[in-house]
Amino acid sequence: MTDLNVDRSAAKKPFRRLLLTGAAGNLGKQLRPALAQWADIVRVSDIAPLGEVAAHEEAAVVDLADAAAVHALLEGVDAVVHLGGISVEAPFEDILEANIRGLYNVYSSAQKHGVKRIVYASSNHAVGFHPVTSVLGTDAPLRPDGMYGVSKCFGETLSRYYFDRFGLETVCLRIGSSFEQPKTARMLVTYLSYRDFIELVRCSLFTNRVGHAIVYGVSNNRTAWVDNTNAAFLGYRPQDSSAQFEHLFPPSAPDTRFDDPTQLYQGGPFVLAGPMEPKREPK
Amino acid sequence: MTDLNVDRSAAKKPFRRLLLTGAAGNLGKQLRPALAQWADIVRVSDIAPLGEVAAHEEAAVVDLADAAAVHALLEGVDAVVHLGGISVEAPFEDILEANIRGLYNVYSSAQKHGVKRIVYASSNHAVGFHPVTSVLGTDAPLRPDGMYGVSKCFGETLSRYYFDRFGLETVCLRIGSSFEQPKTARMLVTYLSYRDFIELVRCSLFTNRVGHAIVYGVSNNRTAWVDNTNAAFLGYRPQDSSAQFEHLFPPSAPDTRFDDPTQLYQGGPFVLAGPMEPKREPK
Amino acid sequence: MTDLNVDRSAAKKPFRRLLLTGAAGNLGKQLRPALAQWADIVRVSDIAPLGEVAAHEEAAVVDLADAAAVHALLEGVDAVVHLGGISVEAPFEDILEANIRGLYNVYSSAQKHGVKRIVYASSNHAVGFHPVTSVLGTDAPLRPDGMYGVSKCFGETLSRYYFDRFGLETVCLRIGSSFEQPKTARMLVTYLSYRDFIELVRCSLFTNRVGHAIVYGVSNNRTAWVDNTNAAFLGYRPQDSSAQFEHLFPPSAPDTRFDDPTQLYQGGPFVLAGPMEPKREPK
Amino acid sequence: MTDLNVDRSAAKKPFRRLLLTGAAGNLGKQLRPALAQWADIVRVSDIAPLGEVAAHEEAAVVDLADAAAVHALLEGVDAVVHLGGISVEAPFEDILEANIRGLYNVYSSAQKHGVKRIVYASSNHAVGFHPVTSVLGTDAPLRPDGMYGVSKCFGETLSRYYFDRFGLETVCLRIGSSFEQPKTARMLVTYLSYRDFIELVRCSLFTNRVGHAIVYGVSNNRTAWVDNTNAAFLGYRPQDSSAQFEHLFPPSAPDTRFDDPTQLYQGGPFVLAGPMEPKREPK
Amino acid sequence: MTDLNVDRSAAKKPFRRLLLTGAAGNLGKQLRPALAQWADIVRVSDIAPLGEVAAHEEAAVVDLADAAAVHALLEGVDAVVHLGGISVEAPFEDILEANIRGLYNVYSSAQKHGVKRIVYASSNHAVGFHPVTSVLGTDAPLRPDGMYGVSKCFGETLSRYYFDRFGLETVCLRIGSSFEQPKTARMLVTYLSYRDFIELVRCSLFTNRVGHAIVYGVSNNRTAWVDNTNAAFLGYRPQDSSAQFEHLFPPSAPDTRFDDPTQLYQGGPFVLAGPMEPKREPK
Amino acid sequence: MTDLNVDRSAAKKPFRRLLLTGAAGNLGKQLRPALAQWADIVRVSDIAPLGEVAAHEEAAVVDLADAAAVHALLEGVDAVVHLGGISVEAPFEDILEANIRGLYNVYSSAQKHGVKRIVYASSNHAVGFHPVTSVLGTDAPLRPDGMYGVSKCFGETLSRYYFDRFGLETVCLRIGSSFEQPKTARMLVTYLSYRDFIELVRCSLFTNRVGHAIVYGVSNNRTAWVDNTNAAFLGYRPQDSSAQFEHLFPPSAPDTRFDDPTQLYQGGPFVLAGPMEPKREPK
Repeated sequence: MTDLNVDRSAAKKPFRRLLLTGAAGNLGKQLRPALAQWADIVRVSDIAPLGEVAAHEEAAVVDLADAAAVHALLEGVDAVVHLGGISVEAPFEDILEANIRGLYNVYSSAQKHGVKRIVYASSNHAVGFHPVTSVLGTDAPLRPDGMYGVSKCFGETLSRYYFDRFGLETVCLRIGSSFEQPKTARMLVTYLSYRDFIELVRCSLFTNRVGHAIVYGVSNNRTAWVDNTNAAFLGYRPQDSSAQFEHLFPPSAPDTRFDDPTQLYQGGPFVLAGPMEPKREPK
Repeated sequence: MTDLNVDRSAAKKPFRRLLLTGAAGNLGKQLRPALAQWADIVRVSDIAPLGEVAAHEEAAVVDLADAAAVHALLEGVDAVVHLGGISVEAPFEDILEANIRGLYNVYSSAQKHGVKRIVYASSNHAVGFHPVTSVLGTDAPLRPDGMYGVSKCFGETLSRYYFDRFGLETVCLRIGSSFEQPKTARMLVTYLSYRDFIELVRCSLFTNRVGHAIVYGVSNNRTAWVDNTNAAFLGYRPQDSSAQFEHLFPPSAPDTRFDDPTQLYQGGPFVLAGPMEPKREPK
Repeated sequence: MTDLNVDRSAAKKPFRRLLLTGAAGNLGKQLRPALAQWADIVRVSDIAPLGEVAAHEEAAVVDLADAAAVHALLEGVDAVVHLGGISVEAPFEDILEANIRGLYNVYSSAQKHGVKRIVYASSNHAVGFHPVTSVLGTDAPLRPDGMYGVSKCFGETLSRYYFDRFGLETVCLRIGSSFEQPKTARMLVTYLSYRDFIELVRCSLFTNRVGHAIVYGVSNNRTAWVDNTNAAFLGYRPQDSSAQFEHLFPPSAPDTRFDDPTQLYQGGPFVLAGPMEPKREPK
Repeated sequence: MTDLNVDRSAAKKPFRRLLLTGAAGNLGKQLRPALAQWADIVRVSDIAPLGEVAAHEEAAVVDLADAAAVHALLEGVDAVVHLGGISVEAPFEDILEANIRGLYNVYSSAQKHGVKRIVYASSNHAVGFHPVTSVLGTDAPLRPDGMYGVSKCFGETLSRYYFDRFGLETVCLRIGSSFEQPKTARMLVTYLSYRDFIELVRCSLFTNRVGHAIVYGVSNNRTAWVDNTNAAFLGYRPQDSSAQFEHLFPPSAPDTRFDDPTQLYQGGPFVLAGPMEPKREPK
Repeated sequence: MTDLNVDRSAAKKPFRRLLLTGAAGNLGKQLRPALAQWADIVRVSDIAPLGEVAAHEEAAVVDLADAAAVHALLEGVDAVVHLGGISVEAPFEDILEANIRGLYNVYSSAQKHGVKRIVYASSNHAVGFHPVTSVLGTDAPLRPDGMYGVSKCFGETLSRYYFDRFGLETVCLRIGSSFEQPKTARMLVTYLSYRDFIELVRCSLFTNRVGHAIVYGVSNNRTAWVDNTNAAFLGYRPQDSSAQFEHLFPPSAPDTRFDDPTQLYQGGPFVLAGPMEPKREPK
Repeated sequence: MTDLNVDRSAAKKPFRRLLLTGAAGNLGKQLRPALAQWADIVRVSDIAPLGEVAAHEEAAVVDLADAAAVHALLEGVDAVVHLGGISVEAPFEDILEANIRGLYNVYSSAQKHGVKRIVYASSNHAVGFHPVTSVLGTDAPLRPDGMYGVSKCFGETLSRYYFDRFGLETVCLRIGSSFEQPKTARMLVTYLSYRDFIELVRCSLFTNRVGHAIVYGVSNNRTAWVDNTNAAFLGYRPQDSSAQFEHLFPPSAPDTRFDDPTQLYQGGPFVLAGPMEPKREPK
């Protein structure tokens, strides 16, 4: 990883260097170009190949479970957008390495380097075992819907600790379903457009003080399972809605499988996905 | 009552058969044609004559207090929109028969026939003795403003029981003032346009899971005494507002009759209407 | 029913005349002698025979569904302890007559006669569908566990209305299991000793202002599903506990019938008891 | 001060006489012409010169600390918009005279004259020591950020007393930053446009019953530290937003002075301004 | 006032110097001797004569409205128990001088001298307009029942400010009725024994951190209008109860003066006492 | 590990086999003998030597991070008291293995073996960054005070998931300071006597349904930072108090190190202890 010697005197951007982890993932790809407008240097990392590296970018392929590599990755960074790690249900071993050990490495290094803020991709699966007939405030009790969700709860409590202990600020984005368009009827509720996602990251980076904040990453969809009132200090006002996609999922009479948990809980199919057996032997 | 032998293979509508009670009433008349788009067969009933019966309709004049007749009415029904019964303050005997015995008949029969959902016309008069200076969530304590309101509280608790006991889902619509236009200044606050009413029924029928839900039936009026945040999972977004009718009630200095309960409580004139003396002898 | 011409000048008791309904029932028998210390005249009523009538007593066998008889019963009364009606799950017709029509008769008559306060025997079955792993405040949502419980919710909302409308005060006693001793392990939690029951009625009658109050009728048992903090203005401090009966129900490993609702909800066996089929034809 | 002998028979305006205090201040000047549409007579007062007096106006230069003068000022008034007093941090002596003694004079006189309603200019500085990472409902605990804020808390509790004791209604407007445009980045959050301010006063005067209400005076800005849901009965719907001024305060990386209270609390610079030393000797 | 030159080397008491204001009042007299066990030097003050001064005491007759005198009074003090000022309803002028200006003088001086903690005699009259049928937590909204109560609200918000701004800690004691014995039936609820009062002050002085705390000063009476759960960190466990005095107020049927506010609100007779006319001319 | 062939026909104990992990630790040693009264067979495990094994015991030295060993350990078990793992602040690697991987192993194995309940030793350090001036309910937000606390939050959310997903019940005991006697003044607040600890485990094992419960493990100390009201369904009534040890920590004036977090937060010294550097190289 090379430190770009950007001529700071010419730069007018608010941040000198932002780090984006998980830059090769679905959302990372969306966000990566947007960061250029906010920082002189954008450092991108992933465990997967990062593609072409722009002039304003620094790229590093890093396994988050590698403490030394993460320590190097965080050096000289003003703020982090941490999308890295596993974002679906997976065997515990994998989640442990990427989302638990990996997250600790990120926070531990950030604190040592004096990084001031992390925007953390949490997930609605941290609260996915709440029923679909409830509307969750940002202070809803944690009710993860799988080991992936449990790891996101770990991230929310770990980051709370780093804020209480060191003043390292975090915005936990409980991201819903951020794709080109909803893939199921359930995603009409959890849909987050790419544009709104980027705006939510912008709000999270630029709000002057965020403390340790939790906010749901959803667009202004007609049906809502969440309520961001208590996160209004972030200034996030979604511009999009899943209404344009409702025709893709024509109305039907309510499901009558009353014992199907995937219909009863906000996490949908995730609530049955875990815990997964390891693909390799546990040590 | 004749069961229409609709050719199901040709039908594309989400419901096979919907029952609408109170179909001859003010709101029933509004809703009746709309139901045709959602169900192959619309069964309509009332204690009053039902007018012309369309090809897709089954019609039955039924007294809700007649258990056997109600039992027959509910047969073969997928879901019910229950507008039937008395919708204003009335002598207790009348309310007892139509709204208490009648409602029990509807739920008892629905459960026996395996009906899955009832959309129940509750009323803001279930909470009408809350002051006009409060804003009620869907979990506000029950404070009925008359015997009519008490009967609506009965319906809300009865339906809660049927959900907890049998999984029979209900959406309780606490309907405000649904007329062509507001008739008094108070109704600028409680106004529910016909269009929004129909949309609210649509949301209540098609949301995949509703459990036992309570929602206020009001349009997006400027002044609000209620807050539907906790019912956001229904996806109800009113399109209309009473603002267009504000000119009908020119501003005046606040009322100075400080001891007039009709000015102090959300129920308005209802709060003084009950209990009414029976028109006939109590048995 | 004869009005006793008690020499008021000699009397020192706080109330001139108290009415006790349901005086021939289990709790009525416990309370009946205690009332003598608080009132010059104790009027007792029941649908069943009332036994020997003491000198300070007036007795009347009354069917609560008989409006005229109830009207006469309430005449000249300062306050009422209303234990009358059905206190277990029963067919709807019976509950309708005794607990719904009957209760309306009591309140309607009380209001007409200017009675100032009613102590109303509600029940924990008004909230019996809350899980045994919750602790209910007096403001817990109504979740009845049967038609009996639904009728108690009716009573709580009807009495709320009479207070809001006429200032007729009511204390709703959500009585648990008041017997000589607990009959099941569950009743160790819901146990209300006779002594504590009488004390609770005393507090309910003598507290200067009660408005419309809800209080749980339980002794100071070790395990609690309810929390009376918000009713502390009544001054009820239970003296007894079910701890002395715990040896009757030796400890066992937790029940493993995970699908048995009688183990999951506070209402216990009541949650499966209703709705009962009528013993006679519905009219 | 001369009482205008307006020909009432010709007048069609809702109020006969409104009093505006602080009419020579920033917001007073905005509001003064608007009042003409709502009242036959507008009485304006200030401690500073009031400029040209219109035909429908009565003008009086009054020191609010002068009990007799205030008593005269309140005579014959239907309602008051009380903007008078000190609206920034100031030495305690000055605040004591203008905002504490002065406010008591206003309420004491209003009650004696039978005035029915006061719209009171409270301030967000009554709750300015809440963090910028919280969103305050109208029931947030009082946490003033200076002696000015303490005096606004005094006004809110004094007016609560006059409502509970005498039924004298008050709407406390917790006004944010009402200027032509925001002067700092912080004011993008607290901005209240003049148009929205006038509309908020209109709602406060014309809502039929307000009791003792608290409402935040902010426009529909993107970032919000406050939540007016519980004041929705006032019908205030802001039309403006500070978004149009955001370009004036280009985005920057979050402030890193973590120990600067002006960045941490909603009150901003006010939190360090007090208490001020007196300009003159304390008596 | 003479500074006692206590030989500190010999002293073992936790505080070097405590200040007690209002030392000549009812509660001041109770507390004064108790303070000797906690401080080497007890400085006592009042506007009234202070009686015999013990060897460990410093005495000063001070008008709290005299800023210079109060400034001198606070010098060299570790902590203050502030009972001074007016403790009943009184004309506004008197309350303004003693409880508003006087309190500001105390806090302003305390902050300048670096005093770390003040135990402030607030009052249940800061919340006396809550109904007798409610049970108030320490976070209940302020609802004063007179100008005396308003001044106590002023004290609670002023002290909140001094804590938020300067870290000067305060425990606000909402003292009920602290006399030898209850004088009315109402005082059975608000009774605070002298012993419990002293214990409450002890807890307030010695708890390591109190921040800005509010606690109700009542004994463990049977009937309670308040709930100190949220102040449990103070360790206050009342030892006494008004039960021993209940025989003084024999039970009676509930009061029937339904329009008598002194029976409806916790403040009792205070709710009608204010505002009082001045005994002398307002300046 | 040998399965004891206990003659079940002779046994009268409620459980056949209980597993106690961490049996060689401080609390494990206290609890171990007590379990004999509740189960025919007590299986004990620890990573440290387990001392003499009684006739009714099975002993196994197990590293919780060893999935296969834990799987074997959980076989044939009715319920688990899980005290194993690290119970103080430690390097992340150690916590990761013992408290995160180890806990997953316990739950994963328990679910596979059909174990019905786990009593889990959580800690007050899961909420240790709440201020000492607050009183926490069982639903207080998670605010861990170190990596140890973070691992306890992991356990609370993991066990929540296993309950929501599989019905595996857990009682999370947020144990305070359970020693022979308090070692610091702070521990007067967090003290849990051994006797009360054992009673709390008894309640947690024998309450018929616990769902996923959180309860604070403290004795009935005078000062309380926590409130177990919502866990009253467990029937835990502490018998002991730290009051007997108060003389060991003589009163002193409040600490004046206002910037010392160990004085400000409930976690005390723990809040500064983490994160610890690894004793060995991170992998």
